[in-house]
Amino acid sequence: MPDDKIIKRGEKLVALFNTAPIKHTFGMTFRYDSEGSAIFELPYNPRFDHALRGIHGGAIATLIDNAGWFTVAARHDTWIATVEFQTRLLEPVEKEKLISRGWLIRAGKSLSTAGMEVKTEGGRLIAVGSGTFAVTSVPFGHNA
Amino acid sequence: MPDDKIIKRGEKLVALFNTAPIKHTFGMTFRYDSEGSAIFELPYNPRFDHALRGIHGGAIATLIDNAGWFTVAARHDTWIATVEFQTRLLEPVEKEKLISRGWLIRAGKSLSTAGMEVKTEGGRLIAVGSGTFAVTSVPFGHNA
Amino acid sequence: MPDDKIIKRGEKLVALFNTAPIKHTFGMTFRYDSEGSAIFELPYNPRFDHALRGIHGGAIATLIDNAGWFTVAARHDTWIATVEFQTRLLEPVEKEKLISRGWLIRAGKSLSTAGMEVKTEGGRLIAVGSGTFAVTSVPFGHNA
Amino acid sequence: MPDDKIIKRGEKLVALFNTAPIKHTFGMTFRYDSEGSAIFELPYNPRFDHALRGIHGGAIATLIDNAGWFTVAARHDTWIATVEFQTRLLEPVEKEKLISRGWLIRAGKSLSTAGMEVKTEGGRLIAVGSGTFAVTSVPFGHNA
Repeated sequence: MPDDKIIKRGEKLVALFNTAPIKHTFGMTFRYDSEGSAIFELPYNPRFDHALRGIHGGAIATLIDNAGWFTVAARHDTWIATVEFQTRLLEPVEKEKLISRGWLIRAGKSLSTAGMEVKTEGGRLIAVGSGTFAVTSVPFGHNA
Repeated sequence: MPDDKIIKRGEKLVALFNTAPIKHTFGMTFRYDSEGSAIFELPYNPRFDHALRGIHGGAIATLIDNAGWFTVAARHDTWIATVEFQTRLLEPVEKEKLISRGWLIRAGKSLSTAGMEVKTEGGRLIAVGSGTFAVTSVPFGHNA
Repeated sequence: MPDDKIIKRGEKLVALFNTAPIKHTFGMTFRYDSEGSAIFELPYNPRFDHALRGIHGGAIATLIDNAGWFTVAARHDTWIATVEFQTRLLEPVEKEKLISRGWLIRAGKSLSTAGMEVKTEGGRLIAVGSGTFAVTSVPFGHNA
Repeated sequence: MPDDKIIKRGEKLVALFNTAPIKHTFGMTFRYDSEGSAIFELPYNPRFDHALRGIHGGAIATLIDNAGWFTVAARHDTWIATVEFQTRLLEPVEKEKLISRGWLIRAGKSLSTAGMEVKTEGGRLIAVGSGTFAVTSVPFGHNA
């Protein structure tokens, strides 16, 4: 169960995401669950298919990056930046809504680490990932 | 210098990419250079910005995935599938055209490995990556 | 709870590991837990310290690789090979016994994926990792 | 060609490595080449074989970690710490001397990135890797 600070930051981050151009381009929705994990939903949109008509790995990587970044961001009072993330594409997927989720592995002073996954609505595991996020000194809410 | 087989497969793969919905959604262009490296160009499009108005890591990961996949695909007679790829975001970038390039690290019978990078038009290095690609038994050209 | 097949293969793999030169060089012990996760213990040995007297990342990577490989190996009837693995060093550690554990993320026909972690005996999380393992066609037990 | 500062730091780092217990346990030698890349040599030692008598991935990961760490360390006036590194095992290897090399991808104020590779003496590419290294505020030479 996340503490009040995380819930409050989460509310600001959800509001921030709603102003992100990429949110509207992909048609993603975003919320935190009761554990403080960032949850992104991407309804199926044929515009993100690759030439063989599966969902492109780049769309899956976008869900992975978002799930990690927003899970970590809610744990810090300053902005964070993605340093690197790995995307493991476990199964091909086509014509399905995708849901990504992040979880905190470790929150540090200068670096934090998260795990991420992408599932179909039916619960099939499509991809997993993990990433490193740098904690900057720019106060949270500065640009929000 | 790539051999004739690679050039021929490359021509088919460029034609294939032109039918990919994601190509049109992102507005990417694709060609092979004289080394047989896949080169993708993504003109700046504010629709792929994150909330703080930089270019989203997911767009960069899409360029990385494509550069690796198409560089490797031109070396095989059968379809390949991305197993995993890592994206290292070295510098933030905003409002710039991005160019990704892949290079073959090792072509194997069942698995191949590639390195990838993303630069701005001015040559600033934005991201690097690497990935593993599985070689399937589905003949190349089957769906092309 | 792993099925009988996994338990039986696990017994063979533990016997195999006991013949591995690296086991004796590091002084590692190996068993499977009740979930079928491979567990490696590395008692503190100053010979694996780096120059600043912490435990070297290479020793931690060895624990990570082993935990993933043996967790996956118990799920297949043929030999597996590590394709790639990532090691995330979350905290420095010195002069402590380390324990690694693997867990299966997905077992496939040609590729399997595992997650791994390294903790101190007191439960402090030192490192996490993940890896891809290729399933070969060489029957399990052939060289065991 | 590295500048004088890098060469001078490199000399200190080589001297430091000679005091590292793990250097003696593995029997590695270390120098910088004319580009300022850290080069590690590991003569074949059966004590680092796995049960099937190939060289263990953990020994290869140790060479990868070292090559990246020492290449990056020579570019900074303060100590660095490995954040994460990926190891891609391209080919199995047995009974051969291994040589690892690192190269700088980007030196930043708080984070630096390197690429790494491991070859046999005959030039066969065995493994590649890449890693993130955090720049601490502890002055270089403090513990050297």
